[in-house]
Amino acid sequence: MKAIELQSPGGIDSLRMVERPMPEPGRQEMIIKVKATALNYRDAEIVRGSYHTNFRLPLVPLSDGVGEVIAIGAEVSRFKIGDRVCGTFWQRWVGGSFAMAEPSYQRGGPIDGLLSEVARLDEQAAVMAPANLSDVEAATLPCAGVTAWHALFTEGSVKPGETVLCLGTGGVSLFAVQFAAAAGARVIVTSSSDEKLARVKQLGAHDGVNYRTDPDWASAVLTLTDGRGADHVIEVGGPQSFAQSLKAAAQGAQINVIGYLGGSDGAINPLDIFRRQVSARGIPVGSRQSFEAMTRAIAVNRLRPVIDRILPWSQAAEAFRYLERGSPFGKVVLDHTQ
Amino acid sequence: MKAIELQSPGGIDSLRMVERPMPEPGRQEMIIKVKATALNYRDAEIVRGSYHTNFRLPLVPLSDGVGEVIAIGAEVSRFKIGDRVCGTFWQRWVGGSFAMAEPSYQRGGPIDGLLSEVARLDEQAAVMAPANLSDVEAATLPCAGVTAWHALFTEGSVKPGETVLCLGTGGVSLFAVQFAAAAGARVIVTSSSDEKLARVKQLGAHDGVNYRTDPDWASAVLTLTDGRGADHVIEVGGPQSFAQSLKAAAQGAQINVIGYLGGSDGAINPLDIFRRQVSARGIPVGSRQSFEAMTRAIAVNRLRPVIDRILPWSQAAEAFRYLERGSPFGKVVLDHTQ
Amino acid sequence: MKAIELQSPGGIDSLRMVERPMPEPGRQEMIIKVKATALNYRDAEIVRGSYHTNFRLPLVPLSDGVGEVIAIGAEVSRFKIGDRVCGTFWQRWVGGSFAMAEPSYQRGGPIDGLLSEVARLDEQAAVMAPANLSDVEAATLPCAGVTAWHALFTEGSVKPGETVLCLGTGGVSLFAVQFAAAAGARVIVTSSSDEKLARVKQLGAHDGVNYRTDPDWASAVLTLTDGRGADHVIEVGGPQSFAQSLKAAAQGAQINVIGYLGGSDGAINPLDIFRRQVSARGIPVGSRQSFEAMTRAIAVNRLRPVIDRILPWSQAAEAFRYLERGSPFGKVVLDHTQ
Amino acid sequence: MKAIELQSPGGIDSLRMVERPMPEPGRQEMIIKVKATALNYRDAEIVRGSYHTNFRLPLVPLSDGVGEVIAIGAEVSRFKIGDRVCGTFWQRWVGGSFAMAEPSYQRGGPIDGLLSEVARLDEQAAVMAPANLSDVEAATLPCAGVTAWHALFTEGSVKPGETVLCLGTGGVSLFAVQFAAAAGARVIVTSSSDEKLARVKQLGAHDGVNYRTDPDWASAVLTLTDGRGADHVIEVGGPQSFAQSLKAAAQGAQINVIGYLGGSDGAINPLDIFRRQVSARGIPVGSRQSFEAMTRAIAVNRLRPVIDRILPWSQAAEAFRYLERGSPFGKVVLDHTQ
Repeated sequence: MKAIELQSPGGIDSLRMVERPMPEPGRQEMIIKVKATALNYRDAEIVRGSYHTNFRLPLVPLSDGVGEVIAIGAEVSRFKIGDRVCGTFWQRWVGGSFAMAEPSYQRGGPIDGLLSEVARLDEQAAVMAPANLSDVEAATLPCAGVTAWHALFTEGSVKPGETVLCLGTGGVSLFAVQFAAAAGARVIVTSSSDEKLARVKQLGAHDGVNYRTDPDWASAVLTLTDGRGADHVIEVGGPQSFAQSLKAAAQGAQINVIGYLGGSDGAINPLDIFRRQVSARGIPVGSRQSFEAMTRAIAVNRLRPVIDRILPWSQAAEAFRYLERGSPFGKVVLDHTQ
Repeated sequence: MKAIELQSPGGIDSLRMVERPMPEPGRQEMIIKVKATALNYRDAEIVRGSYHTNFRLPLVPLSDGVGEVIAIGAEVSRFKIGDRVCGTFWQRWVGGSFAMAEPSYQRGGPIDGLLSEVARLDEQAAVMAPANLSDVEAATLPCAGVTAWHALFTEGSVKPGETVLCLGTGGVSLFAVQFAAAAGARVIVTSSSDEKLARVKQLGAHDGVNYRTDPDWASAVLTLTDGRGADHVIEVGGPQSFAQSLKAAAQGAQINVIGYLGGSDGAINPLDIFRRQVSARGIPVGSRQSFEAMTRAIAVNRLRPVIDRILPWSQAAEAFRYLERGSPFGKVVLDHTQ
Repeated sequence: MKAIELQSPGGIDSLRMVERPMPEPGRQEMIIKVKATALNYRDAEIVRGSYHTNFRLPLVPLSDGVGEVIAIGAEVSRFKIGDRVCGTFWQRWVGGSFAMAEPSYQRGGPIDGLLSEVARLDEQAAVMAPANLSDVEAATLPCAGVTAWHALFTEGSVKPGETVLCLGTGGVSLFAVQFAAAAGARVIVTSSSDEKLARVKQLGAHDGVNYRTDPDWASAVLTLTDGRGADHVIEVGGPQSFAQSLKAAAQGAQINVIGYLGGSDGAINPLDIFRRQVSARGIPVGSRQSFEAMTRAIAVNRLRPVIDRILPWSQAAEAFRYLERGSPFGKVVLDHTQ
Repeated sequence: MKAIELQSPGGIDSLRMVERPMPEPGRQEMIIKVKATALNYRDAEIVRGSYHTNFRLPLVPLSDGVGEVIAIGAEVSRFKIGDRVCGTFWQRWVGGSFAMAEPSYQRGGPIDGLLSEVARLDEQAAVMAPANLSDVEAATLPCAGVTAWHALFTEGSVKPGETVLCLGTGGVSLFAVQFAAAAGARVIVTSSSDEKLARVKQLGAHDGVNYRTDPDWASAVLTLTDGRGADHVIEVGGPQSFAQSLKAAAQGAQINVIGYLGGSDGAINPLDIFRRQVSARGIPVGSRQSFEAMTRAIAVNRLRPVIDRILPWSQAAEAFRYLERGSPFGKVVLDHTQ
């Protein structure tokens, strides 16, 4: 079977399509025919060689994807042949706290990812794909979707009427907008583009703040909330935006520290966490139980993940270049059926 | 000022409109001009004399209502003259667990209720009425609304995609339908009337089960949820329905024990709580903090309480008769401005 | 290797020691040399044939035990040869809510138990035995210990100064006494024997109530708590005692419905759950994460499980008879090294 | 009645004992004869004029104290004359989240504190003093005690076997040591003094780390916990120590940001909260419900607050000088009976 490998450190040009032996399912494992995969910045950093860890090569990239079960091991009880399943990011994190997530079992590195024709999954590391989603839509869920869900509904507990502030329009933030709006929350989004702010409102956001035309966006959030501030913040901006997130947060708010799209340099005085009386929490994607809860929310509320572009999986390199070039609105997905 | 008193035990005919001295606000108290009040079954039982406690008479009935602040004490800081406020049921339960609710401070008995021209409220026992509601709508919130909210979002933590089962179409259940639908939950309602089931679907319910034409309604709920069962149950039916609620509940579900519209006789084997692995919890209305959270949810989601009938407050006796005669769809409200 | 099988329905006399092939470890599995096993009432019911389900025979009984890892599969990462591990009851319930516990994966039925020389365990279904415990002590943890822990610290959240009421002196109750006392709670125990009450006080209980000499033991509990009642109840008595547990419970208390040592017949009016404003919850043993948290508590607080009697594992039948005859104070354990 | 006022900005020398009119209790208020008061750094900063807010003068300092009820208002129901009560820090925060704590109702500024012969308390802003404590011991609870409790048991949920790391031996840390040990946690304390480390072990701490002789104290904590790290951190050191607290924290740990005994300058990269997957939370003392829960824990576990020095209340100025000079081990308390 065909797979695309990262064969040597240092970048997109070292991705090669190779022939690999067809995998056999272990007793509690399944073989899936991969239908679609999706890219995350983590994947791009791994390919580029700028990820904080260097994994053993060759490595098949991409943690996110969906496929059809074509073979199952003797003891598999959760799925049957023909089921359409998504893989989970943390292969061993079934449920419970993050302490249960065994670090050496991350899909897409160190464990081979799904950028291949077929893949082997432990039945404990897969969930049924929501029936209302297409393959390319379902492929986007494992990292960006679960991260947003874990922040808002597993660690957090968003209630109708609370305010959720989403920074930017990256993959996690767009899922957070859709989930928070479905939960009856009041949703505020920041962006440097009025056109993107118009589009997030179509996804359910109530208000948008353009941080380019309005650099003191925290004050804008306070104004929009009559001075109360946001109860939940999807903080993907990094140190530069964290100080303003603190200012925009309500007393007792939960600031979910997820990423650093605005760069990883900068610092804050931790006493400001005390002065603002907030909780700042790191979000590590999430467990399979969170994933399964999310799929029910997607089905009941007929949510559709936002997709920016679909390419044939043979053009994975081009997809990585596209992800790094622009700032897509929605996920970049690879179609494994063409 | 005028007030309607329950003057002697035993019923609606002992309600009398009387003249009472105009109240003075204490240091942290307010005087409100009552705009509207709403009836609950508890009020009817108190008037009828069938409530489990007999309060000292004369008593001004009705715990639920809304009014305009017309005078404030020297130390009042939460409200100002002109504000439109709802009273809370538990005068002392500001926040925290039910242990903080001092039982002798229930509005409408033992403490005088709001069936009067003006009333005295402690500023800690009032919340700002949602701006998007009319007076008659805002009057319905303190008991039925807060009970539904407390069950689903304070003790419970309804998440998008979970299933909420609401028994019947009484006041608490109708609020639960609206709140659960606003939270992105999948909502199932039981009723003996297809016409009422059609109306709850307009409020956001996804499915209805007619327990008259389908006496084994628990099985119907299991079928609707692919055998999974409901994650949250608004159990207002009493012992007769509790056994079926257990059957209709998902593993780990929370059954909120609230009322006994189907009568208070009957029994269950408590081991069934063990065998079904659920949690059954009594719901005592809720705290002021729950009330305030609910008002934000109502405002953000533009929810409107369901009202069955509005009468002039001078016709309180007729309103009680109407409540006891029929099974209204929505609240019975008294207009204090006519 | 030798194992003891239940070969036909209906009782202790159909237990037979047989020779079975030596098991091979799967990729993520281990082979352990069983050192000790412990009996639970569930095991006795399965052997007797009175359990609510009939499992396929022959079946090796006993869910609880400890052993030494003597072989591991190629992908095992959590343990190494020589480790001393306890098996978990729910083979698939690693963490998260009970919805993650796949019912067909219970040790001791339908899955073969540990009443054998060696056994095969998935590395996800085992925990490191606490170093401060002997083999016979460690063998007692998987069901009785985890059930008490799950009730008090996973579903419940016992805090210092709260009151924990433990009914009787069965296996779960004795663990609950030790855990609750270690957590700084005030512990009250009921028993029909003053001698047993004296012994639970040595385990950390503060007060004992003899329900034989004091049939209205709920009132005794209310007196001991100045009328406040117990915040947590370990309810193992069944329907007969549940009514008194409700009476002995504080407002907002959690009643953990676990067993029916007093018989399974009887009924309550579920409205009493509402009137007492408590939460009644079924407790299904617990997850591996709860088990691991418990082992840390045992190590830090130097707790020693209570053992009533140790027999050679070849005398399993006698051990079952002993369990059914008397009401032991502590666990009945089988030593697999003699 | 006599009171000590801060009469002008800028320090201890502007404290003056004055004669004030005897207060009258409002409807829901009590008058207490103050028995003892205790100092906190907040009080010292207010007197010194270095607190972030400047309150209206003259102001009676000190938020912490205990007294005997000598008069009650007409509607007081929670207490009676002769009761011994502590005042709460947040006069309006009865229970629920910090959003319920009305900022303008802090005792000791802006509201007059307890450094006087008698004081007026709202019955909602007082709790019964634990019977097992002397007056000088009970006086120490409202700020330091409740802050430790709120961090560990209201926001946190310390379980037996978890590791609690307490920085230094200030007032909050000493209470945290006693509460965490009573809860069966494993307690680690840092200090610059081996003599103080020896004394905290007498209070229940399991291990001590001298950060003077061992500047890389975070590594020492990791070693003591077999690399797992602390589950809860009482972070009172400020920005300088926060970076090491992050390093010493277990995955998913809660870092309670409380103070800045090591100075308020410094910075961290907020992404480290993400990289370490911890939760950092500001702790604002706590609610009356937390205070009441703490008093039960103190009574059941016979805990005695640590007192460094007791002075007559007329020597308040000297007490402030003593607090600022040294680093006391335990609270500095004023005896109002001499």
